[in-house]
Amino acid sequence: MTDSVVNWDGKWTTDWEGALAKRTERMTSSIIRETLKLMSTPGLISLGGGMPAPELFPIREFQEACRYILEHEGPQALQYSVTEGYPPLKQYLVAKMQKYGVPAEEENILIVNGSQQALDLIGKVFLNPGDTVLTDRPTYLGAIQAWSSYEARFVTVPLDDDGTRVDLMEDILKRERVKFIYSLPNFHNPAGVTLSLERRHKLVELAARYGVFIVEDDPYGELRFEGEDITPIIVLHKENTIYLSTFSKTLAPGIRLGWIVAPARVLGRLVQAKQAADLHTSIFVQMIANDICQRGFLRQHVKNIRNMYRERCAVMLSAMEKYFPPGVRWTRPQGGLFLWVILPEGTDSMELLKAALEEKVAFVPGSAFYPDGVSGKNTLRLTFSTATPEMIEEGIKRLGKAIERQLAQCKKVQ
Amino acid sequence: MTDSVVNWDGKWTTDWEGALAKRTERMTSSIIRETLKLMSTPGLISLGGGMPAPELFPIREFQEACRYILEHEGPQALQYSVTEGYPPLKQYLVAKMQKYGVPAEEENILIVNGSQQALDLIGKVFLNPGDTVLTDRPTYLGAIQAWSSYEARFVTVPLDDDGTRVDLMEDILKRERVKFIYSLPNFHNPAGVTLSLERRHKLVELAARYGVFIVEDDPYGELRFEGEDITPIIVLHKENTIYLSTFSKTLAPGIRLGWIVAPARVLGRLVQAKQAADLHTSIFVQMIANDICQRGFLRQHVKNIRNMYRERCAVMLSAMEKYFPPGVRWTRPQGGLFLWVILPEGTDSMELLKAALEEKVAFVPGSAFYPDGVSGKNTLRLTFSTATPEMIEEGIKRLGKAIERQLAQCKKVQ
Repeated sequence: MTDSVVNWDGKWTTDWEGALAKRTERMTSSIIRETLKLMSTPGLISLGGGMPAPELFPIREFQEACRYILEHEGPQALQYSVTEGYPPLKQYLVAKMQKYGVPAEEENILIVNGSQQALDLIGKVFLNPGDTVLTDRPTYLGAIQAWSSYEARFVTVPLDDDGTRVDLMEDILKRERVKFIYSLPNFHNPAGVTLSLERRHKLVELAARYGVFIVEDDPYGELRFEGEDITPIIVLHKENTIYLSTFSKTLAPGIRLGWIVAPARVLGRLVQAKQAADLHTSIFVQMIANDICQRGFLRQHVKNIRNMYRERCAVMLSAMEKYFPPGVRWTRPQGGLFLWVILPEGTDSMELLKAALEEKVAFVPGSAFYPDGVSGKNTLRLTFSTATPEMIEEGIKRLGKAIERQLAQCKKVQ
Repeated sequence: MTDSVVNWDGKWTTDWEGALAKRTERMTSSIIRETLKLMSTPGLISLGGGMPAPELFPIREFQEACRYILEHEGPQALQYSVTEGYPPLKQYLVAKMQKYGVPAEEENILIVNGSQQALDLIGKVFLNPGDTVLTDRPTYLGAIQAWSSYEARFVTVPLDDDGTRVDLMEDILKRERVKFIYSLPNFHNPAGVTLSLERRHKLVELAARYGVFIVEDDPYGELRFEGEDITPIIVLHKENTIYLSTFSKTLAPGIRLGWIVAPARVLGRLVQAKQAADLHTSIFVQMIANDICQRGFLRQHVKNIRNMYRERCAVMLSAMEKYFPPGVRWTRPQGGLFLWVILPEGTDSMELLKAALEEKVAFVPGSAFYPDGVSGKNTLRLTFSTATPEMIEEGIKRLGKAIERQLAQCKKVQ
């Protein structure tokens, strides 16, 4: 598309750059995508990405559900449908949410194209340019992307082993007009930490006192492989919380299926935004997922996922003990897919990535997860869900070597 | 969700209304959705909605494709994928577009969740609040919804039997800073008219001269059942056109699958916006659609759809001759799903809808398709794709009766 079929004078051509909306200045591509491209290098072990283990995908169950739905409800599965979502799937989610103590009815649930779309719709409904969102640092990259495209401002508090430093929030809430607080309470992406019950109570109290709502993003909640479930924020604070979750980590991400739980009047706004965005989520996909879920498949399946990730996480942790040089610290997740590595101050994980790629191992540099895009240079995220235990052991060994090389070089420079 | 589990003082609860972004003032629910709800009335004949005929859905082909893809490429079909779309499906679309003379390569194509998402992404990438979009009046409701949520201003030109009154555009382009022109050249929704080749040339010339680009929305282009194909706008004006189409009217709408063709540098921006919006379109759905398409199924299938719609349209037109009172006019489509009815000045199609529902027939009142939401009170849209010929005949008979009652009442009031 370089030469024009219409022989117009140059100045008659559209000035595409000039036509862009202001918000595009804030739109960027994910560094994870770039890492994904490298994954095709032969022999590379990727501990980047955030993918579930494909060997556990329930292919047989998908085959059966496709057969059943197309045979018995084909015309409905292929026709236009309502924006809110397939009612039987919403009923399934009501029951699932109630099992976790979340007081949801059908009118509180909206089915979306993965929880990334939930983040987008929340931005669309609530964020004026310049509005302030309070997040952790680091926080989920996709949330930064979604809300940056609505020109949000981010203010942040750090994390520790008990999750968000809620004790540092009140000063910010006093000083700033925060629109909402974004929380990833369970097995944080990227940090792998979990917000303690005590802090959840404190968070809810602060949010209520300052009249801000909470967006509770819970894609990994079911994937706890150690310790006891902790009460969701929405249970403590149901009138003031928008809760998001997804089938991506329990069923399959490729179908793009997630859901939002919100007070009914809020949900109505999100439905309007979704209608303008894409009419509705594939009803074909919704009916297939519903068929699989209604047969009770997920109960045992999620246990299998947990067992696999528990083992892989343990392998990664012990390999890190073995292969990482002194001065490197990391988090110890109780569930989910990720853990977080903190290198000695002054190390640059973008530089480390180059060294690591030479050793044929990949990870995601930590600065991608900082809303300012520059902090966290000495951090990185590792995924333990995708590689086999043997690959994890070997990958951490290679990464340890790369870190050692990098640290030696840093000392030389100093 | 009326009482709070946390016993907060009332003023501590989130002021959800106060928290809404300004753009939500412009978000509304579609009147078509309301009409859809009425469709469950027993015995009602709906000539509203915009649904393809479900009896032609290729259920067997979907069954075969699901079986094949899950058996041979299951892990890929269920895993995360790239934002741009499944490469083999993009290759299929490149070939399809080239058949229509559209000079597209893979780098020019983005797969989206139905073309409604294309409209949304275009709004996100190009529209600042207050930006002006030039559309027809009437125009596609979903475009009004999508761009209203980015706070667009609409300026409009009327249609006649040859489509958009392009001759009235230059005055507007001189007077207003138009961001882009939205065109539905083939079998217009809702008006059923087609833009003549002469006017396409004139449109392209004007757009080039005034440095505005064109969004060419072509969901029905393949469904021509009368006359000859007319060159797409993007062929006349490839560097300055964003072209949209969909599988909704040829394969099935329930899978939510559409595509965008745009200059590569524009496409890159749309990809960024899509990534923040929902990461990617269901790869499972893309692979299934690709499997069906690559087997050459659509060629014959689209002929069958055309034959069915040709017949149904003819039945509707002759029933209108028979049952509609004098003074009512309508368009004569050469393809697509819709035709447009113009009632005598002073008639209100919202009032008529009440009378029609008493007669158990439904349609969409025309004012829904006017960006100002109030013009076109004496117009309505009829769909000939969904009802059988017998139902169309009976539905038009009932509607004729309702129109007569309504006209009689109008005279009485006067």
